[in-house]
Amino acid sequence: MKNYKMTIQYDGGRYLGWQRLPKSDRTIQGKLENVISEMCEREIKIIGSGRTDAGVHALGQVANFKADIDMSTSEIHDYINHYLPNDIVVTDMEEVDERFHSRYNVKIKEYTYHIYTGDFQSPFYRKYSWHIKEPLDMGSVSLAMESLQGTHDFLGFSSVKKVKKSTVRTLHSISYTQDGPLLSFVFKGDGFLHNMVRIIMGTLVEVGQHKMTPEDVQRILNTKVRAEAGITCPPHGLFLSAVQY
Amino acid sequence: MKNYKMTIQYDGGRYLGWQRLPKSDRTIQGKLENVISEMCEREIKIIGSGRTDAGVHALGQVANFKADIDMSTSEIHDYINHYLPNDIVVTDMEEVDERFHSRYNVKIKEYTYHIYTGDFQSPFYRKYSWHIKEPLDMGSVSLAMESLQGTHDFLGFSSVKKVKKSTVRTLHSISYTQDGPLLSFVFKGDGFLHNMVRIIMGTLVEVGQHKMTPEDVQRILNTKVRAEAGITCPPHGLFLSAVQY
Repeated sequence: MKNYKMTIQYDGGRYLGWQRLPKSDRTIQGKLENVISEMCEREIKIIGSGRTDAGVHALGQVANFKADIDMSTSEIHDYINHYLPNDIVVTDMEEVDERFHSRYNVKIKEYTYHIYTGDFQSPFYRKYSWHIKEPLDMGSVSLAMESLQGTHDFLGFSSVKKVKKSTVRTLHSISYTQDGPLLSFVFKGDGFLHNMVRIIMGTLVEVGQHKMTPEDVQRILNTKVRAEAGITCPPHGLFLSAVQY
Repeated sequence: MKNYKMTIQYDGGRYLGWQRLPKSDRTIQGKLENVISEMCEREIKIIGSGRTDAGVHALGQVANFKADIDMSTSEIHDYINHYLPNDIVVTDMEEVDERFHSRYNVKIKEYTYHIYTGDFQSPFYRKYSWHIKEPLDMGSVSLAMESLQGTHDFLGFSSVKKVKKSTVRTLHSISYTQDGPLLSFVFKGDGFLHNMVRIIMGTLVEVGQHKMTPEDVQRILNTKVRAEAGITCPPHGLFLSAVQY
């Protein structure tokens, strides 16, 4: 059995998320598994680096699957892209060591969140950014970003309900770039809890709007109370931008 | 009567073009005129800097209209955006001299054409770029670009059929930038004939693929025979990016 690693881009706008659902055809994993199973003439399960929620996009999702197929890697790559809908694309494909596991072997994950500022949303970014009219106080946002970096229990910044596993994660960096009205926040870490990027982002926006302070962010890291943090910002501004192994 | 100048962005993907059509609701001008006429409680005609074809986008289309309304410019701006579909946005609005005319007063128009190179089209650029798999020979393309700059009769690079008016135009510059797989060509000129950017772009691509030579481009400027030039490339890669007055 050969092990194939895929890097995948998708526009999550019309999907219910990454994870296959029994009764819906509208998942990214489902679309990929259907095409790959058809190609292999048997049921193939693919392993993603992690789930993305409904409406979230990816520029560099990674998944792997094992199969014995009498086709070159390049032929497999072409076959899959040919049969995928055009809002899902496998950008890279390679044969990897049989022990490679897309989820267990993740070293760093990178997410990007786009915020479009100004009076009016752009027709071109409206599906890929959260529109915030008022300018944000980026000095305060930067202070809050600094306090979030490092190793913390991020329970208060997640939708995790029943704590069975550790909710400690290391956020290696949060940074942002500005390109005219478009603010792009980049989050790099060893792993992210459910909704963690969207709740941190929602909190940072509230800090930028002076509805919260950088000290509040520090406090929530200690109290770990979700209700004290900002809103879960909308999924369509979020991109899983890269996974490193 | 006050004269209002609007700068407009639109995703042309689901429209039949700028120009109002008697029997279709799917034009940009039509959408704008309907909203503005509703606001003014009488029929208002707007004047665009020029037409864009079906499927062509705009980042900086300009149009003006004359009206007497008991609302501030900012209130008018908000009203129009509120009632426009979200793939059309008025980004700027100002009251201008009554003699200002969006079409007659144009000094420079700027168009951008996006080409996405590489084996697979991006899910995010597929609606806004033309996908070309093979890398282009940009040395040859640059030579052809140089010979097109300046004042020429561009009849051979247009869809103009019956020549009534002059087909001489000045192309101030053609340049390109590359951002990974995305090539963006910028055309600045005093005016453009019908399909001129798309035919020049189609010709430049064929030069980059060695189907034509930079000398062919020079020759077509002299022979003015449309059939000798390259294909009219697809509309969805084209943006009217700016109009200067």
